[in-house]
Parts: sequence; C-alpha cells; structure tokens
Amino acid sequence: MNIDMIRTAAGRLDGHARRTPLLGSPFLDRLAGRRVLIKAECLQHTGSFKYRGAFSAISALTAEVRANGVLAYSSGNHAQGIALAGQQHGIPVVIVMPSDAPRLKLANTRALGAEVIEYDRGRENREEIGGAIAAERGLTLIPPYDSPQVIAGQGTVGLEIAEDARRLGIDRADVLVCCGGGGLTSGVALALQAGATGLCARPVEPVGFDDTARSLISHRIERNATTAGSLCDAVLTPAPGELTFPIMDRLCGPGLSVTDDEALLAMAHAFQRLKIVLEPGGAVALAAALFRPSEIAGDTVIAVASGGNVDAPVFARALSMLGGDSA
Amino acid sequence: MNIDMIRTAAGRLDGHARRTPLLGSPFLDRLAGRRVLIKAECLQHTGSFKYRGAFSAISALTAEVRANGVLAYSSGNHAQGIALAGQQHGIPVVIVMPSDAPRLKLANTRALGAEVIEYDRGRENREEIGGAIAAERGLTLIPPYDSPQVIAGQGTVGLEIAEDARRLGIDRADVLVCCGGGGLTSGVALALQAGATGLCARPVEPVGFDDTARSLISHRIERNATTAGSLCDAVLTPAPGELTFPIMDRLCGPGLSVTDDEALLAMAHAFQRLKIVLEPGGAVALAAALFRPSEIAGDTVIAVASGGNVDAPVFARALSMLGGDSA
Repeated sequence: MNIDMIRTAAGRLDGHARRTPLLGSPFLDRLAGRRVLIKAECLQHTGSFKYRGAFSAISALTAEVRANGVLAYSSGNHAQGIALAGQQHGIPVVIVMPSDAPRLKLANTRALGAEVIEYDRGRENREEIGGAIAAERGLTLIPPYDSPQVIAGQGTVGLEIAEDARRLGIDRADVLVCCGGGGLTSGVALALQAGATGLCARPVEPVGFDDTARSLISHRIERNATTAGSLCDAVLTPAPGELTFPIMDRLCGPGLSVTDDEALLAMAHAFQRLKIVLEPGGAVALAAALFRPSEIAGDTVIAVASGGNVDAPVFARALSMLGGDSA
Repeated sequence: MNIDMIRTAAGRLDGHARRTPLLGSPFLDRLAGRRVLIKAECLQHTGSFKYRGAFSAISALTAEVRANGVLAYSSGNHAQGIALAGQQHGIPVVIVMPSDAPRLKLANTRALGAEVIEYDRGRENREEIGGAIAAERGLTLIPPYDSPQVIAGQGTVGLEIAEDARRLGIDRADVLVCCGGGGLTSGVALALQAGATGLCARPVEPVGFDDTARSLISHRIERNATTAGSLCDAVLTPAPGELTFPIMDRLCGPGLSVTDDEALLAMAHAFQRLKIVLEPGGAVALAAALFRPSEIAGDTVIAVASGGNVDAPVFARALSMLGGDSA
C-alpha cells in the first residue's frame, strides 16, 4: 500500500468521481475558534466517499475478472458505491442485504442496476451466502475497507485536500476524518504523508465506539463491545481493519470522539451555514472540529464530511436542535 | 451591458467566489425523463448566487468611491452578499432592514460586519431613509438586480455553465433559472449567448408571480398584482427590471412556473439525491426541470439552484413530502 497506488487510482477516477469542494463559513470559524474547512464528500456520487473506493477497486480488476461481476455485503454507502460503479462498468453486481433493510434502500440499490440478494439477519450468515454465490458465478468480493484498491480510492480524498491546502497556503493543520473500518482514514493519511507533511490525519468516532482511538493508544487492534446503539451507523464497525490499522498506527494523530447529539448539532450547522446534507456518521469529524477545540492544534482545521445518506426523520431531528432561530 | 463586462467580473471574482459544482443523480434523471444537471449556487458564499453580484459591484467601484462604503436595502440574500463582500473589501456597509425581520437575519447581517439600520415597514419608507443616509455619508447604493455590475457578477454563473457544458459535450439544452428581478437570468442569458449558443436561458417563477413570463410574451414589463403569498420569497419582485428585462426579452426562451408544493418537493428531492439544501425560491428551476417535462426541449436540462437560505421549519415541511420512504 503506497502513494503510487493512490495516484494511479486518481487517474482511473478522473472524469468519474466528483472533485468535491472545500467549504467554509465565517460563522463556523467563530464557533470553532479557528478556521474550519469542510471537504464535502456528501456531494460525491451516491452521497458518500464510498463511490471512490468502489470505482477504484472495480476499475483495477483485469477486464476478464471484472466481466464476471462483483459482490458486496452492505446495506449502506458501500453498497450504493459498488452498485453505481459496477453499472458504469457494465458488469453484474450482486449486493447481499438483510431482508429487514429499509425498503427504499433495497429499491435504490436495485434501481442502480444491482441484483439484491436478501438474507435473514437472525438465521442466516451473509458471508456463507455471499461466498457460495461468488464461487458459483465467479464474482469478485469487494470489501468495504480492508482492500488495497479500496484504500487507494478513498486516498484520493487526501490528494485533493493536500492540493487545496497548498493552493490556500495552509502548511499545518489537523485533518479530521470520520472513521469506521479506517479505509478513508488510512487512505487520507497516506496521501497527506506524501503530499502535505504538515497535515495530520486524525480519526473521529462516536463516543463508546472508539475502537480506532483506543487501538492507536495501545498499538494493537482493539474491538468495540457492540456495533449497535449509535445514530452514526456509517462509522460503526467492530474494529479497525487488518490492512488499515497498521497504516493509521504509523501515520495518524490521536483519535477524537463525539456524542450522537454533537453529530446531530454539527448536521444542523452544516445545514444552516454550508447548505449541505450530512448523515450522523458523516458529521462526526465536523462535530469534533466545532466542539473539541482544545484537542485540536493550529489555526486551521480540515474536516472530511464523508456522507449524506440520512433519513428525513433523523435530519428533522437534527434541525430541531437549531431551536426557533434558524434563518 | 455585454459579455466583456461579465468576463471582467469573472476576473475580479477569481479566488473569491466559489466555482460551484454541476451535480446530478440517476434518480433525478429518471424522474425528469431526461438528464438533469444542477448548478449548485446554494454552495456559494452566504448561501446564494447574490454574493457574485455583490462582490462584482463593490470591486468595480473606484478605490476612492468604494472607501466611503456601500448601502443596500434587503432582508434577504442580497444583504448577506453585500455584507460579506463589503467586509472582504474592508469598507463600511449599511443595510436597511425592516425591524420585524427575523432576529437571526438581523444578527447574521451584523455578524458579517454590516451596520444594520432598522425601519418600521408600516410607517417609514426605506428609500427615503436609505437615500438620506447614503447622501450624508457618501455611500454607494448597490441595487439587487438593476445594475450592470450586479448583472455582470451573476452572469459568471452562466460562464461556468457554458464551460462545464462544453466539457461534458452538451451543445443543446434549456438552462432554467430561478427568476425574481432578472439579474441572474439576464446575466446567464448574456453569458450563454456568447459562449454556448445552443444553450437557452429560461426564467422560472412561482405560479401567480410570473411577471417575467408574461412580460416575455407581451414584450413589455408586466407587474405582479402582489408580492406576498408565496413561500418562494427570494424570487418575489414586483416586476422584471428596467435593465434586466430588455436583455431577457432579447435572449430568453419562454418562462415556466411552478407551485409552492412543487418547489418544496424539489427541495426534498435535492435533499435526498444531491445532499444540498435549497430554499423554496432557489428550487423553482429544479422543480420545473422535474415536473414540467413537456415544456422543456432536448435530452438534457440544466437547472440553476440559486440559494439555500431556508428556515428549519420550512425545510422540515419539504422533508415531510417524502413520506415514510426517505432512506
């Protein structure tokens, strides 16, 4: 895993992935006590950075292997990314999803051309089902984070941050990254190490699900007791990945964590000041930038806003935190 | 008023205005029955395209005149744009606002460094108050649309659309523009005429406030009976402008109009599929793209999403139109 793989992935993504903007607002700067820049990956295709890793991984396959198709397990952002990237490559895509996933998520995945195979979360094992289908049809499994080409794709976010920081004359800053399995965080860390050595990637997680922060302290993979019980579903994973953790351990600064309410409030501020839609898991880095000022160094902080796939009721709950004054 | 003024304005705005992205989603394409591209000006500084015209007008003043300061009447997007652009130029800014404007709008305008002068909407005349202050202090009035340098600034939206359309190989399309006084619409029309002759600017207004559409039919300035009674406050003006209308009359295609409910539903789709926040007046062009397919020509339509300054309760009302299925 090295910077050349990220640069090569960037070449494959050129003309496909959106170059997302780095946004900011004087109101957020005031709230945070320093300049805050937000990398708006919620504006990426399918509403999250996951499209980058998905497209990178699919485009890196040989034409022969790719033609057989790909498979992913996910009911979330990775599934959408794989479905769209697979559709754009004109290949079969199978997504294994729990049958109790929201109906619209099932419909959306199918609408992007994927074959959705439902399983019973209580009685069946998705790895077994997926493994059998993959073997039978010769499909390639694309993991959500523990894959070099997925990490390389997510790392293109870091290349863009490094380039924009250079253009803006920012040579020192913490770069806060919403962190689940660590695909985005490790990819961004690699890109910054190569292209912007004064920028330091730091994972942000929900309070109580800070497996990566604890792993960075102990220098070994620590696990969460559970992966249920936070609104930030997009970043709830059992533990950092086997491939992603060594990279983060070598390159990242200390982790931060924020509460669900802080994530919701960050969503409300992003609505009001940036006019972007964030999901709770995609707002944890911005929440840390706004509400953990004493844990951050420097006069500029960069936060990756990693996704915006949020249900209307949860978004309405975030808006209600603005109170009456919301113009 | 010509293309060179727009190009010169673009030079002054370079490094200040954001180059906003052109977004899209396969789900919106399906809904509209053709490819829909959305110019996301809600992501512009202060949440609307108005910053462009404000910065253009202020930066076009001679240093001597500018140093005295500027004045605007507005409780909306124009005020925010003038306040920020004035602050960036380090000059005094006076905004004349009704004292019953939402408290947070007054506070936001002050937070951007402007002096807010309140007046009683029922008993006082803002032009008289503003005129007296301007004369006394030597301030330059920056009108919201009927000003060549304001039109030139808004026209930079059209330059970017023309450039992006060229890059995407789009040589024929309707370009739908949210239209109040016509500053944005006329500026975009001028830019398209010069740089993308197959692209046709068309104003979009709320049903019942279609002064511009009617004026384009009669070839003279028609007025709205009232400017109250629509949620789309950002595009409610009594009539197209004296400067903007002749340009629109010469260059624009027929106007379209949409209901408040259609604007709200377009906001909901923009939330769900694009992850951007639109205000009702900023969503009318997207609403026309989605819900007036038979009035639009070609296999691609471009809609300018002009602003996102919306109160949380109105946004929550838009979200409620998605029903239960909102993942």
